[in-house]
Amino acid sequence: MADKVVLYGYFRSSASWRVRIALALKDIKYEYKAVHLLKNGGEQHSEEYKKLNPMGQLPTLIIDGLTLTQSLAIMEYLEERNPTPALLPPDAAGRAQVRALSEVINSGIQPLQNLNVLQKIGDTKVEWANFYITKGFKALEAMLEKTAGQYCYGNQMTMADLCLIPQVYGAQRFGVDVKNYPVIMRVYEELIKLPAVIAGDAFRQPDTPEDLRAS
Amino acid sequence: MADKVVLYGYFRSSASWRVRIALALKDIKYEYKAVHLLKNGGEQHSEEYKKLNPMGQLPTLIIDGLTLTQSLAIMEYLEERNPTPALLPPDAAGRAQVRALSEVINSGIQPLQNLNVLQKIGDTKVEWANFYITKGFKALEAMLEKTAGQYCYGNQMTMADLCLIPQVYGAQRFGVDVKNYPVIMRVYEELIKLPAVIAGDAFRQPDTPEDLRAS
Repeated sequence: MADKVVLYGYFRSSASWRVRIALALKDIKYEYKAVHLLKNGGEQHSEEYKKLNPMGQLPTLIIDGLTLTQSLAIMEYLEERNPTPALLPPDAAGRAQVRALSEVINSGIQPLQNLNVLQKIGDTKVEWANFYITKGFKALEAMLEKTAGQYCYGNQMTMADLCLIPQVYGAQRFGVDVKNYPVIMRVYEELIKLPAVIAGDAFRQPDTPEDLRAS
Repeated sequence: MADKVVLYGYFRSSASWRVRIALALKDIKYEYKAVHLLKNGGEQHSEEYKKLNPMGQLPTLIIDGLTLTQSLAIMEYLEERNPTPALLPPDAAGRAQVRALSEVINSGIQPLQNLNVLQKIGDTKVEWANFYITKGFKALEAMLEKTAGQYCYGNQMTMADLCLIPQVYGAQRFGVDVKNYPVIMRVYEELIKLPAVIAGDAFRQPDTPEDLRAS
């Protein structure tokens, strides 16, 4: 465990953002290597990077001699490695609900607003992203009405909250009227006060462009 | 645990298919309720069904008094409830790899060949689905070259295999030349011999149309 931990990420990538917050919460120090999603046609497509991550996606985490990909799989690994503070509830029923909330975002929304998909959609990409985020947020709001306390699932921060944070940014970026989702936004406003969330924030990373940097 | 288990599914839905195999492997008996994805504009969009599954997706599993959604979250729950036979390796590193392989399919490929997305794409939907499955299969083949034994991860069947089976069907359906992926296909040919895989097969379900039924 003494090996250096390295995170390959991009400031605005949702999945990198989730993992940065998880690492901060669990107080795991890491070296951050920026992979620029747009420069040189997208550095994630380079042969060198695809040796680490064959999908050409972010993030990749090097830890304990392993090369880990897929943000939810990475968060599950971090949870098993550093169980405190927990990102999953102590009971199986709670874990199932948190994993379902996480997947609504991870597989239900995010893949459809992914950069490579929007590039393929072309001119109507904002309308496309707005449509799928709105569809997902309606479902998520209905689910959170049943599960949320201070956070997505009760009063303990979980993996679902780490998925929610960049997704709310995505919603705002693509013009979704977030006022229609009062539970999502109440939880979000709680979350963004937390030190680990601030540490993982897209607008405070080494690769955040100057003009987008949080003050 | 004596409560009746009910699976809301559709014969050809990838995510329903994964969960049917998991239930068969773990020898959990269930009542199957078919939700037709096309009839009446899609029964998954009904107000009644969306009370169970706000995303209007399949499957939903009623078990132990819980209403569970999202196939990966459901498989994790079944794994915790009925640990034998295991769907995850005994070590954290192995679990991380199996979860990553599962997510490459669950969030990296399947959402882009989902019925509701293809309906929105329209005329070019076969080309679209083919593009994203091909992209995903190239990555998956590279990952399996490192991890596969008899199955996706070594010689024990895992969650990743349950994701692979319907995805190979999807690839064939959308004209992907599966001969280009020898490791994927070698694992697939092993898998389809197994009794639990046959029990969960799309073409042997109560709602499989007569003309598509396996003989």
